[in-house]
Amino acid sequence: MKFSSKVEKCGLSPMRKFHPFAVAAEQKGKKIYHLNIGQPDIETPKAFFEAVKHFDLPVLEYAPSPGMPVLIDAIQKYYDKLNIHFEKDEILITVGGSEALQIVLQCILDDGDEILIPEPFYPNYNTMVNTCGAKIHPVPTTPEEGYHYADRAKIEAEINEHTRAIMCTNPGNPTGCVLTPEEMRLMVDIAKEHELYIIGDEAYREFVYAGEPLQSLGEFTDAADNVIVIDTVSKRFSACGARIGCILTRNHALLAQAMKYCQARLSVATLDQVASAALYDVGPAYFAAVREEYKRRRDTVMRKLEAIPGVICKCPKGAFYLMAALPVDDADRFQQWLLEEFDDNGDTVMFAPGEPFYGTPGKGKNEIRIAYVLKQEDLERAMDLLALGIEAYNKR
Amino acid sequence: MKFSSKVEKCGLSPMRKFHPFAVAAEQKGKKIYHLNIGQPDIETPKAFFEAVKHFDLPVLEYAPSPGMPVLIDAIQKYYDKLNIHFEKDEILITVGGSEALQIVLQCILDDGDEILIPEPFYPNYNTMVNTCGAKIHPVPTTPEEGYHYADRAKIEAEINEHTRAIMCTNPGNPTGCVLTPEEMRLMVDIAKEHELYIIGDEAYREFVYAGEPLQSLGEFTDAADNVIVIDTVSKRFSACGARIGCILTRNHALLAQAMKYCQARLSVATLDQVASAALYDVGPAYFAAVREEYKRRRDTVMRKLEAIPGVICKCPKGAFYLMAALPVDDADRFQQWLLEEFDDNGDTVMFAPGEPFYGTPGKGKNEIRIAYVLKQEDLERAMDLLALGIEAYNKR
Repeated sequence: MKFSSKVEKCGLSPMRKFHPFAVAAEQKGKKIYHLNIGQPDIETPKAFFEAVKHFDLPVLEYAPSPGMPVLIDAIQKYYDKLNIHFEKDEILITVGGSEALQIVLQCILDDGDEILIPEPFYPNYNTMVNTCGAKIHPVPTTPEEGYHYADRAKIEAEINEHTRAIMCTNPGNPTGCVLTPEEMRLMVDIAKEHELYIIGDEAYREFVYAGEPLQSLGEFTDAADNVIVIDTVSKRFSACGARIGCILTRNHALLAQAMKYCQARLSVATLDQVASAALYDVGPAYFAAVREEYKRRRDTVMRKLEAIPGVICKCPKGAFYLMAALPVDDADRFQQWLLEEFDDNGDTVMFAPGEPFYGTPGKGKNEIRIAYVLKQEDLERAMDLLALGIEAYNKR
Repeated sequence: MKFSSKVEKCGLSPMRKFHPFAVAAEQKGKKIYHLNIGQPDIETPKAFFEAVKHFDLPVLEYAPSPGMPVLIDAIQKYYDKLNIHFEKDEILITVGGSEALQIVLQCILDDGDEILIPEPFYPNYNTMVNTCGAKIHPVPTTPEEGYHYADRAKIEAEINEHTRAIMCTNPGNPTGCVLTPEEMRLMVDIAKEHELYIIGDEAYREFVYAGEPLQSLGEFTDAADNVIVIDTVSKRFSACGARIGCILTRNHALLAQAMKYCQARLSVATLDQVASAALYDVGPAYFAAVREEYKRRRDTVMRKLEAIPGVICKCPKGAFYLMAALPVDDADRFQQWLLEEFDDNGDTVMFAPGEPFYGTPGKGKNEIRIAYVLKQEDLERAMDLLALGIEAYNKR
């Protein structure tokens, strides 16, 4: 029985690759510190669960296909507070940021088309782009330059007649890169000049640590046809399991195409929309506390990394990830060895090996992604284990 | 700015086409009886909301990509009670039956492929198939034969070298057709002989009115590679807004492909999975009462239809829809006239015109779909309005 050639080009999540080895290590009694997954440990605001408890309609009906007015209102007000205005019909509610991306990519990418994505990038983009019959054209960056990509020459060198769009994951997963206002302007200008869509995947908007104001590509009203913003409650409110996201764009022709997908899948979960609307009542104190907590963690990770000889890592400015080049031959082999051969008092550590975050074959072999989603003392222990592991691995 | 050629082939939901005319009619003070939408009015079992209220984890985390064990267990037990066994890893939880269909079609359909679907069929299949680069090859049926399609000659006449799959919506939306056990066997045999997938879209399984045992293509363990079952809690438990469905198949190569999609979209809403698992504790008395209610409604609709001269409609055996051919020139024009020109004491009626349920151009022009999701007295009034409307329309 044949499968689609498109799905055959896709792979399983690289983040799960070491799961069987982790299970085996745990069965031998090892304790694993997880720096490999982006599931935050921050509590979801109680407002979510309160709203759910107070839902009292007798029939759990389909919501409207573009989303429930209560949630669209809440998101509109959130953006208004950032001085970014979207009309209500310029906001489409989706099943997480993932569905928002899938719908947008299905609308804009055709067989043979290309989308520019600075590498390293979020590996799930691969499946989303492949299933459109399109392909990712990676924009190369280096750990030495802190994965910097917002450079006219660098971007324009990769544009060709198949290019349809540019993806800006900002703040970046896996790099933690945050664009400056000037860099955002530059990226939008390039998109405008070359008539490309520019997608801002802005799931980590609140997670910026240098006191900078919150940013969005949605600011650029002069590029109404080009700019598409992808948003989600997942990381903002530590509500990943709600699966609530949205598409924001002022391109009404695109909205009309996207509506076809929204109607075909009928609606997004009713209760999660109602509860996510309540999340937006959370005040700035919530974000300030969360931001402070992550900044402390980032600083811990950086301090520990800087003490390891041979590590290359520029301090990231946002998200809760960073990429680092390690003084090891192969991060995959090193991870497997950490799970199978290494322990310190019964403890070991997991990270995400870097290669699957690259589109260019062979790149990222000695790099890793660290998700700093552990509380302070666990994070310190995890980073010490990484340092001890590198030393022992290179002495084998 | 260009869009994907695939999305341009798709259309907006035909069920929404008359929405602006309905709004205009209501603004003039008309009361509309809605036979046009499949949103049941039956109460969602309290178990759903109780489970939601008792969820007390501090962080609303991502669920596992293939689904939460508690829900997979509940679904496995439900099928075991029907004497149909699926292993736990043969059940993938999805965002409603819609995502289940999307994932399956993306896995099995390539550019240029065809899927056989008896017409009239659920119009959202169009978007789902078009976005795979494939196309629906309709299997023709007639109102006079009660939309019967399970016939070897009829099916085999439509199979060609592009055919990859057959869709069996059973019980049928929009027709209400229910296959006999012999017809199910025949459909599976045809799929096996021609090495085709056979997809059972079985959202309406519980809604059968002749006392027959509940059926599923999942019974046919001899066609493990061919059979794919699509299921959902939406209609079964009147929980459309939960957006919880699943894929069931014993084809492990297909499951491995589908997992790529499941991982790329990360997970299905956590709370809705927990609450949907609780739905499966509802006893047979719930289904018996719901079935009895819908059967009464179906009988009401049929009684009223049979009293209208010139209507062609065989009594459907399941789901909560039926298709009927009306003695009018054009159901679209008739619907618009009912909204704009007609009323009886300020009341009028809406149905779904039949043409969008067909893949063959020009077919279904004088047919309509009726969803009998209104309570008894409203349903009687709605059907009386239909009869009065036909009479007045033909006397213009």
